[in-house]
Amino acid sequence: MTIARGGRLPDGLDRAMEQLNTSVDVDSALWPDDIQGSIAHARGLGRSGVLSAAETETIVSGLERIREEIEQGRFVWDRAREDVHMNIEARLVELVGPVGGKLHTGRSRNDQVATDLRLYCRRRGQEALASLDRLAGAIVDRAEGELDTLMPAYTHLQRAQPSRLSHHLLAWQELLRRDRGRLEDALRRANESPLGAGAVAGSGFPLDREGVARELGFAGPMQNSIDATGSRDFLMEIASALSILGMHLSRIGEEIVLWSSVEFGFMTLSDAFSTSSSMMPQKKNPDVAELVRGKSARILGSLTALLVLEKSLCFGYGRDLQEDKEPIFDAFDAAIVSLDALAGAISTATFRRDRMRAALLRGHLCATDVADFLATRGVPFREAHHVVGALVREADTRGVELSELPESALVAAHPLLTGPELKSALDPEAAVERRALVGGPAKPRVQAAIAAARAFWKASER
Amino acid sequence: MTIARGGRLPDGLDRAMEQLNTSVDVDSALWPDDIQGSIAHARGLGRSGVLSAAETETIVSGLERIREEIEQGRFVWDRAREDVHMNIEARLVELVGPVGGKLHTGRSRNDQVATDLRLYCRRRGQEALASLDRLAGAIVDRAEGELDTLMPAYTHLQRAQPSRLSHHLLAWQELLRRDRGRLEDALRRANESPLGAGAVAGSGFPLDREGVARELGFAGPMQNSIDATGSRDFLMEIASALSILGMHLSRIGEEIVLWSSVEFGFMTLSDAFSTSSSMMPQKKNPDVAELVRGKSARILGSLTALLVLEKSLCFGYGRDLQEDKEPIFDAFDAAIVSLDALAGAISTATFRRDRMRAALLRGHLCATDVADFLATRGVPFREAHHVVGALVREADTRGVELSELPESALVAAHPLLTGPELKSALDPEAAVERRALVGGPAKPRVQAAIAAARAFWKASER
Amino acid sequence: MTIARGGRLPDGLDRAMEQLNTSVDVDSALWPDDIQGSIAHARGLGRSGVLSAAETETIVSGLERIREEIEQGRFVWDRAREDVHMNIEARLVELVGPVGGKLHTGRSRNDQVATDLRLYCRRRGQEALASLDRLAGAIVDRAEGELDTLMPAYTHLQRAQPSRLSHHLLAWQELLRRDRGRLEDALRRANESPLGAGAVAGSGFPLDREGVARELGFAGPMQNSIDATGSRDFLMEIASALSILGMHLSRIGEEIVLWSSVEFGFMTLSDAFSTSSSMMPQKKNPDVAELVRGKSARILGSLTALLVLEKSLCFGYGRDLQEDKEPIFDAFDAAIVSLDALAGAISTATFRRDRMRAALLRGHLCATDVADFLATRGVPFREAHHVVGALVREADTRGVELSELPESALVAAHPLLTGPELKSALDPEAAVERRALVGGPAKPRVQAAIAAARAFWKASER
Amino acid sequence: MTIARGGRLPDGLDRAMEQLNTSVDVDSALWPDDIQGSIAHARGLGRSGVLSAAETETIVSGLERIREEIEQGRFVWDRAREDVHMNIEARLVELVGPVGGKLHTGRSRNDQVATDLRLYCRRRGQEALASLDRLAGAIVDRAEGELDTLMPAYTHLQRAQPSRLSHHLLAWQELLRRDRGRLEDALRRANESPLGAGAVAGSGFPLDREGVARELGFAGPMQNSIDATGSRDFLMEIASALSILGMHLSRIGEEIVLWSSVEFGFMTLSDAFSTSSSMMPQKKNPDVAELVRGKSARILGSLTALLVLEKSLCFGYGRDLQEDKEPIFDAFDAAIVSLDALAGAISTATFRRDRMRAALLRGHLCATDVADFLATRGVPFREAHHVVGALVREADTRGVELSELPESALVAAHPLLTGPELKSALDPEAAVERRALVGGPAKPRVQAAIAAARAFWKASER
Repeated sequence: MTIARGGRLPDGLDRAMEQLNTSVDVDSALWPDDIQGSIAHARGLGRSGVLSAAETETIVSGLERIREEIEQGRFVWDRAREDVHMNIEARLVELVGPVGGKLHTGRSRNDQVATDLRLYCRRRGQEALASLDRLAGAIVDRAEGELDTLMPAYTHLQRAQPSRLSHHLLAWQELLRRDRGRLEDALRRANESPLGAGAVAGSGFPLDREGVARELGFAGPMQNSIDATGSRDFLMEIASALSILGMHLSRIGEEIVLWSSVEFGFMTLSDAFSTSSSMMPQKKNPDVAELVRGKSARILGSLTALLVLEKSLCFGYGRDLQEDKEPIFDAFDAAIVSLDALAGAISTATFRRDRMRAALLRGHLCATDVADFLATRGVPFREAHHVVGALVREADTRGVELSELPESALVAAHPLLTGPELKSALDPEAAVERRALVGGPAKPRVQAAIAAARAFWKASER
Repeated sequence: MTIARGGRLPDGLDRAMEQLNTSVDVDSALWPDDIQGSIAHARGLGRSGVLSAAETETIVSGLERIREEIEQGRFVWDRAREDVHMNIEARLVELVGPVGGKLHTGRSRNDQVATDLRLYCRRRGQEALASLDRLAGAIVDRAEGELDTLMPAYTHLQRAQPSRLSHHLLAWQELLRRDRGRLEDALRRANESPLGAGAVAGSGFPLDREGVARELGFAGPMQNSIDATGSRDFLMEIASALSILGMHLSRIGEEIVLWSSVEFGFMTLSDAFSTSSSMMPQKKNPDVAELVRGKSARILGSLTALLVLEKSLCFGYGRDLQEDKEPIFDAFDAAIVSLDALAGAISTATFRRDRMRAALLRGHLCATDVADFLATRGVPFREAHHVVGALVREADTRGVELSELPESALVAAHPLLTGPELKSALDPEAAVERRALVGGPAKPRVQAAIAAARAFWKASER
Repeated sequence: MTIARGGRLPDGLDRAMEQLNTSVDVDSALWPDDIQGSIAHARGLGRSGVLSAAETETIVSGLERIREEIEQGRFVWDRAREDVHMNIEARLVELVGPVGGKLHTGRSRNDQVATDLRLYCRRRGQEALASLDRLAGAIVDRAEGELDTLMPAYTHLQRAQPSRLSHHLLAWQELLRRDRGRLEDALRRANESPLGAGAVAGSGFPLDREGVARELGFAGPMQNSIDATGSRDFLMEIASALSILGMHLSRIGEEIVLWSSVEFGFMTLSDAFSTSSSMMPQKKNPDVAELVRGKSARILGSLTALLVLEKSLCFGYGRDLQEDKEPIFDAFDAAIVSLDALAGAISTATFRRDRMRAALLRGHLCATDVADFLATRGVPFREAHHVVGALVREADTRGVELSELPESALVAAHPLLTGPELKSALDPEAAVERRALVGGPAKPRVQAAIAAARAFWKASER
Repeated sequence: MTIARGGRLPDGLDRAMEQLNTSVDVDSALWPDDIQGSIAHARGLGRSGVLSAAETETIVSGLERIREEIEQGRFVWDRAREDVHMNIEARLVELVGPVGGKLHTGRSRNDQVATDLRLYCRRRGQEALASLDRLAGAIVDRAEGELDTLMPAYTHLQRAQPSRLSHHLLAWQELLRRDRGRLEDALRRANESPLGAGAVAGSGFPLDREGVARELGFAGPMQNSIDATGSRDFLMEIASALSILGMHLSRIGEEIVLWSSVEFGFMTLSDAFSTSSSMMPQKKNPDVAELVRGKSARILGSLTALLVLEKSLCFGYGRDLQEDKEPIFDAFDAAIVSLDALAGAISTATFRRDRMRAALLRGHLCATDVADFLATRGVPFREAHHVVGALVREADTRGVELSELPESALVAAHPLLTGPELKSALDPEAAVERRALVGGPAKPRVQAAIAAARAFWKASER
């Protein structure tokens, strides 16, 4: 801050204040964006004639040298220089002399940091989308490979109806499909240029806002300088999209934990995604899935921080906004590592087909089909539901499955409960294929859904 | 729940359990959506031949009678019937006899409530958009009327640079513009039909999912039955959009509170939007703005609840999801009432132009312009910034404004600080008009921005 | 608000503003507290001589008549009278004439509502503590009854070590024990009287703050009038305690859901706490546990709302605080109904001892004991851990349990792995009893823990 | 993890999994606690005879060498060793040989990390309390120095009644007083020893749990091993206390921002706590207060993360809990730096007494006193309130203050409005001193409150 402090406040900061004020430990992550933004600003100043061609060239090549220094780990970050912007600008002046001091003409840290943050989000957003695509791809691959694996569908974690594993995996993928849409929408809305908005009320210099926006790949300049410098809804929206994604990943994680238990036994993670215990030598733990659940809590914490940060904030930049960086950085980090680890874990896991299929045989999974059997024959569904409910009770009392009840018991419950089609109603495999509506688990439907998913994700990867 | 309980669980619920389980006090708000969804489902069953034409007609007209009963306040909600769905279905059977029991054929409460909720969100979402449009319209109207009102732009709540009120009001409107986009995106993504997904694994009946979706105005049927019944990301996304909107309204509210204070004195609310005190007879309080701030906290609480609800939830409907209703209802209520009240308060408030203009004269608001003046004359901006900072210190010591320093002091600080153009640099009015970049406060720019805003909001209101 | 509006703002409110402003639909829940507080205030005014004995008597008996009217459902709440306070005061004037207008002498709604809220929290807090005690009691009862039921302890939802059900249930109870402490601490800190703080700066009347505080059962009057009227940390703290409790209940709920699954099969809920499905006649669902998980999300949402509400709030009452009521009411409601329903569900559930015991036999649960066996014989634990880990791998390859490996394999892995004491190391029952440290699952320890728990909860119920 | 991975999972982790799994970048902050805990555990093993005296001595002195290495910056943290525990244990084995492998006897990382976290919280909690004491001390000092500074009390940010600055500052301090209580309660409840709980079900070794607990300064060993290893309510509670504190600091921050504005002009921050702008040379910004507000959002985000983390978590350690560290570390950091910076800022700020006093003269601040004047003379307060409200309206119409109305206007409004005592009612200074109840702003009351505050904080600093 030494530079900005300048003539108005000649003396130094208090030590505690300095600690609060310095942000370079965190915001140095913005360096690629800060350099990119500064180069575009310098070129814009050149085009506008505010800088001469030679000055522009000097500044741009100075900034490029700094980029190299950072990439090569030679750049010395100085906490006394407060933040990433001042570190880079001060180094620029060291490298190119006083002309470096012209870079900040017509610019404020307020529009500068807003620009950096938007570039950062676009950059990390692309990473996140790529990771999302990988995870979805891994899931669709597994869905394709497990097309013939039948398993129960659950509600309330109780076995509900016969279904197939592919259908279940495609449900995971449906969530991710909408997550992609949300993140894309958020990134699109964020892709505008604050540069030229100055501190709050624009600039009196003839800056080339459109040209700079174009060079930076933004859709265009933001249309109000007060908004451009003081709004952070793009961060809130991105963090919302990542939080919803995080909750979805926590649900997938929960199922992986469950399915990896001895009790379910539906899934075995590969060793490369398992961990053991420091005390119990037999343990093989699904930490990957648990960490993903844990990260989802962290992302939600980051969203909360970003939302609360703006509560009752006056317009025009306020320093509260310095605290927006760690949460958004952390949200991206958590989301990306979760997506990547889950993709690997799912790709390499073993599904235990025998256990899944065996699970179809206990839990009266065809009770709905028997009620439907009656409803198709004219019994109002509510009555049919009641009849079958009572039969299930009877089966439980006898300690058998609904499908194991003697015909006499069935007919006694309702005279229509007989005949060869009833047999089919009681067959789990037939039950799956009978659910052949759009969005159902019947094989052709699932095959079509896999093809549609492939097409969607291929288009996304553009 | 008496109906669903049926044959499987013949006895009643425990009292505490009943209290936890019953939701009709809250979810009766879904009644228009439940009836609309049931009529479409019945007609679909008719088209598929599952119901005869006569049965369909009976059921549909029964549902329409129920709609009338509710509209006329004659419907008796029964907590023993647990929820809105069972209340309506039970009444249907009362009205039309056992054939009413056929309505639920091929349907589960799981796809039914998911459908109701999406219809509800669309309905309230349209209300919210209309309220948003009204507020934005009110703001743009005021911006147009205050085109010649100059005021300081602030950063850190310190006077920063000369600006104009219209420019400030348009910043409010920019936030709302993006809020509209977010809400529209969320509503679009939510506009899919879960009906036909059954409890979790679809249905064996030949339901007309596309036709039902079309009749209900949905873009189409959802593509995976497990996802359709067990996902609530549409609620999380809508609540995110409303939360971000809420934070924005809290910022506007904060400024109204501030501007209404004796100290700022920039604004006077009309009596119709002011309240007094039970103890202090002189008080005229900006409660409207404070309540809007308070509501923003509530909306964020609702978002949190909706996000946390899905944390680690297994796929397939879980009863946890019953708790999604109150938060989303409350979020819509809070957002809509906040928008409407703010629109009225802003439309009827008085801006105190004299106080705003007077505020330009204290705070050295033209310091940036003086630094720019030097920078334009070749002084590196950093050096110029330093020179002017020291001058501000000197002015403070003398107890005068920068613009009131004698020329000798200016020239002593830097030899270039002289001449008629410096006078213009020190004139706040000139300073505003000099900021003529896209997004700046100069009059023609703001006029163009008003025109663009008008065009945007007109298009939105379609 | 008609009353407070009075002479300063003679005209009515805008309709949207009225909707935002009126709170009686929510805050009428404060009526017992408002009447209690008003009676104490009136008596205090009497003692101070501000009211005559006759006036005091008239007002107090008027308030008591209102109490009866409300209890008997005869009181007509009027939204035009804005809130619970004005409804009651206006009715008082109707009942006793203009002298009713003296009740508000030396009082403001600001100290009045702060008092009401504290009385409310104490009242509901006592209910919550009683419900907490009941749940804990139910758990301890079950722990006592299941003293001989062995089951695996899990980490990462993987079977970890042999343990006993009572020990597990007592872990649930430990959380509740601390939850009680937190809620008690919060209620204690809240138990101070704001009455007499006036609107913000106290009162010029000679109010008997100490006497009024005593009559209301508060520890004493609050020591700063600005704090007394504008602080709500007591709500934040109570909501924090309830949120942590909610998270704990969600964990118990999660285990009930899991244990009720076919796969675990450790638990069967009674019918009175189970629900069925509207579509699937066989379903018996653990909705009670899912609803409790869902409520926990709601409580956390309420906490968030209460915390955010105070963000950046100036001192002195602000109307934002009206929005504190619904969250705290809802948090208490959700916590209490969750506690009560869980208590019933746990009391009446059946634990399936056979299934729990059988679960001990798969998962190499004694691996730690074998490593400990080696460590006891001088092998560094790290090496012992490694040896046993490799043995587990070998057992898995052979498809057997660690305890089923031939002695030759054991000795080959480590020469010390032999002898009769090794047999004991491999016996799950012995393993449980060997864990006889304080806090361990050995029978005498658990018996002592049950006794300690009984003593704690008995003391609590005071 | 190489060590724990051992024999069960011989191969390495996937790269993405490793990134997710490794925590040493964060949890190395636990090093002092980990070493302290390990030394106590080793000594306990010695006392129990599990380790020989020589082995104990070797291990303890090895751990002390590691402490030195870390303090001197010579310790090399290795991400491949996963976490702080494994880094230290592996280094121990390097330093002392295989006997180092005996340290982990009877211990699991599960009870180890729970112990470390509790030690950490106690350590940072003491720091936070000390910082809290300093801030409160600074506030009380200023309150004492400003005893004669009168200012308006505000509600709704509107001037309400005459008050004094000391009274206002003491309101700040009241919040901090309860914040201290909350943090102390949380730390007390956290001060129990998990060591000896093992992985989940205790240990078969004869560990000296009580002795180890005592050596570590804990109140005693935790009473249930499942609870001890898998519960984190102590983190949730501490984070709640810090969040409430954060909200309080945000309120103080808000007032500093407001008071530092040109419009209020009640306060000038010292240069050592002010910042300038990179663009606007005249700016002197209250960043300290804004950063404190921003940090409060971050702390709330951390609390949210910690609460959500436990949502629906099964009992027994789950790896989700790894994600508890960054939020609690960050919450402590944010709280402590905020407290320290505010203490400095408040200590060194200048209060502008003239501006505060001048503010008493506009806003009809004595309106309540006039209504009280009438009430004292038998007019029901409601009627008095109405009369004065109308007078305020009249004063506004005339453009004067209530105190400037001619006697004729007063008497016309109510015949009792006359006489010398009315003059006193209209004098702001007299009005302050008249508010002489406990908790009021009259000078003797505030002097007593300062003395009480001094006594409280002195006792706290113990």
